[in-house]
Amino acid sequence: MADDTKKESSGTDRRVRPRIGITLGDPNGIGPEVVIKCLLDSRLIKFMEPVVIGSSGVLRQHAERLNIRDLRMKVVEEVPERLPEGIVTVLDVIPGESPRVDFGKITAEGGALAMKAVEVATDLSLDGRLDAMVTAPISKEAISLAGYTDPGHTEFIARRTSTTEYMMMMVAGEMRIGLVTVHMAIWDVPRAVTREEILRKIRILTASLQNDFQIVRPRIAVLGLNPHAGDGGVLGREEEDTIIPSIRQACDEGYLAFGPFAADGFFAIGGYRNYDAVLAMYHDQGLVPFKTLAFESGVNFTAGLPIVRTSPDHGTAYDIAGQGKASPGSMRSAIYTAIDISRNRLARGRTNG
Amino acid sequence: MADDTKKESSGTDRRVRPRIGITLGDPNGIGPEVVIKCLLDSRLIKFMEPVVIGSSGVLRQHAERLNIRDLRMKVVEEVPERLPEGIVTVLDVIPGESPRVDFGKITAEGGALAMKAVEVATDLSLDGRLDAMVTAPISKEAISLAGYTDPGHTEFIARRTSTTEYMMMMVAGEMRIGLVTVHMAIWDVPRAVTREEILRKIRILTASLQNDFQIVRPRIAVLGLNPHAGDGGVLGREEEDTIIPSIRQACDEGYLAFGPFAADGFFAIGGYRNYDAVLAMYHDQGLVPFKTLAFESGVNFTAGLPIVRTSPDHGTAYDIAGQGKASPGSMRSAIYTAIDISRNRLARGRTNG
Repeated sequence: MADDTKKESSGTDRRVRPRIGITLGDPNGIGPEVVIKCLLDSRLIKFMEPVVIGSSGVLRQHAERLNIRDLRMKVVEEVPERLPEGIVTVLDVIPGESPRVDFGKITAEGGALAMKAVEVATDLSLDGRLDAMVTAPISKEAISLAGYTDPGHTEFIARRTSTTEYMMMMVAGEMRIGLVTVHMAIWDVPRAVTREEILRKIRILTASLQNDFQIVRPRIAVLGLNPHAGDGGVLGREEEDTIIPSIRQACDEGYLAFGPFAADGFFAIGGYRNYDAVLAMYHDQGLVPFKTLAFESGVNFTAGLPIVRTSPDHGTAYDIAGQGKASPGSMRSAIYTAIDISRNRLARGRTNG
Repeated sequence: MADDTKKESSGTDRRVRPRIGITLGDPNGIGPEVVIKCLLDSRLIKFMEPVVIGSSGVLRQHAERLNIRDLRMKVVEEVPERLPEGIVTVLDVIPGESPRVDFGKITAEGGALAMKAVEVATDLSLDGRLDAMVTAPISKEAISLAGYTDPGHTEFIARRTSTTEYMMMMVAGEMRIGLVTVHMAIWDVPRAVTREEILRKIRILTASLQNDFQIVRPRIAVLGLNPHAGDGGVLGREEEDTIIPSIRQACDEGYLAFGPFAADGFFAIGGYRNYDAVLAMYHDQGLVPFKTLAFESGVNFTAGLPIVRTSPDHGTAYDIAGQGKASPGSMRSAIYTAIDISRNRLARGRTNG
């Protein structure tokens, strides 16, 4: 295994301290601030080799605004084989330039810089020069001003890694939630909840729980679409006609899928604790309980990619940018999750090799 | 005020210790058990005059099963003007009979007994012989076997009190949630969310917050229907076409309505703490966060009725009936809420008189 040798020659065992690329996100939002707060946390740093990907100038402007003077960094234009110790490596993705930070502003420059970092981090992850990437929030409007047409990180990274079978997963401790439909109007949801789509998501979820979370036989709880999971057909037919047959077929194929469960009762009794993941039918059904339970510790993870990518579950929060108020909780959780998943994948790779 | 005189002559000031009727619910479920557990709580009893409505025989069979010997009761066939002190008054709604308890079974007899108690409690509340009623859970199937066609308590009580402008409200401490649509398939929800219906619910909620919760100028947070509250029309048109115009019209009429808010972000930051009530568009959008946050302390309250009625937010839980495992938390909260609301109404009645 040539790859393994390369990893060991870098001076640190990446199966113990994986190399994590952290993109700064929109320079005018809270991304750089939460990244700085995490980099100053020595408990976190000892579990990984961090490489900040974006702009050292942006990082400095945020640090100044926060009155932080003890952030030592080494600026590079390429990720070296061996990283300097005890100091943060920062990769300038647009060498020579020092972009201006306009706290709280939506700008094309901000969008362009943010996406360039995501592009570089994705390529470095594909090349194996990073073990995982963690992405600070971008602004949909800013990246659109910069000419990007993808609605967000997930679709961009999927395209760049030529992945079609992927899905967003929300992770907080032992609670993991996947969605059958994501950014879709409620009007369109019932017709988008098809047998094929439910099965597809059960397959992607199961593979990710096995590969990324080391769960040998993952158990998935499938929620109903309607109140009371349709109450036997009285409150909607989708459970009887679509969801129950999908669960049956998944079981026939050897997957451990259960349900459909009424969403309110399921979360009331903390049902997610009895399953390795929950498959919700639509955005709010999954995200409302997730954010209610996991605010400031929730993580987004894109399951199904050839690379490891996590992100905090908050946005750019322009309204508090540069004020020192942003909580690094979710970013910290995103980094820990990236460390765990890359270790799991590296361990698996070694076993298989 | 003839009514007031009558109340005072009963020996106890009902504005301080209101008289609360508690229906036993389905005899084969956990209703009688959680009622018994509350009646044994002296902290709770000192704030009210309890009248248990249902069957003394059912109460005894549950007490025996729970090995409870210190439940002293006086069985009556009519509610006397003056209640005995230090002992629980139990009104037998089917005199002479002692119904058999079949723990965990759905029976027509159970359904009939449960609904007879609700009928009697409603009439006593209308007559002013009770200040509030608290209803233990019934089984939809059992009452249907007994020939009742109403889907549940709320509709039955509304009909019996000739009320059309009512709505279910979920209450847990300062969190109060109302729904625009309740038991409805997701498929039908978008077309049921009309301007008229949203306005109607804002009006009923506001009146109840004023009359029942003593909030002079109630502020109501209205949620969006779609993910991200439609994201400016990209993820569904209902916010732009229906919900925002309803909120505007409500404000024009002098109501304090705000929103629409994206449901996930709203609950993530505990947004309900900044408003006197939340208006959700459909069942799971309101009940999932409510039950996630308020399990074992959530209360259902029917706003808009001429009488005061609350209930715990759980069902008959046949699977654990008679086992001593049922938590009385939600029933206790339902009783406290009934006490608070009836005091508020009695105080208001006095001020107006």
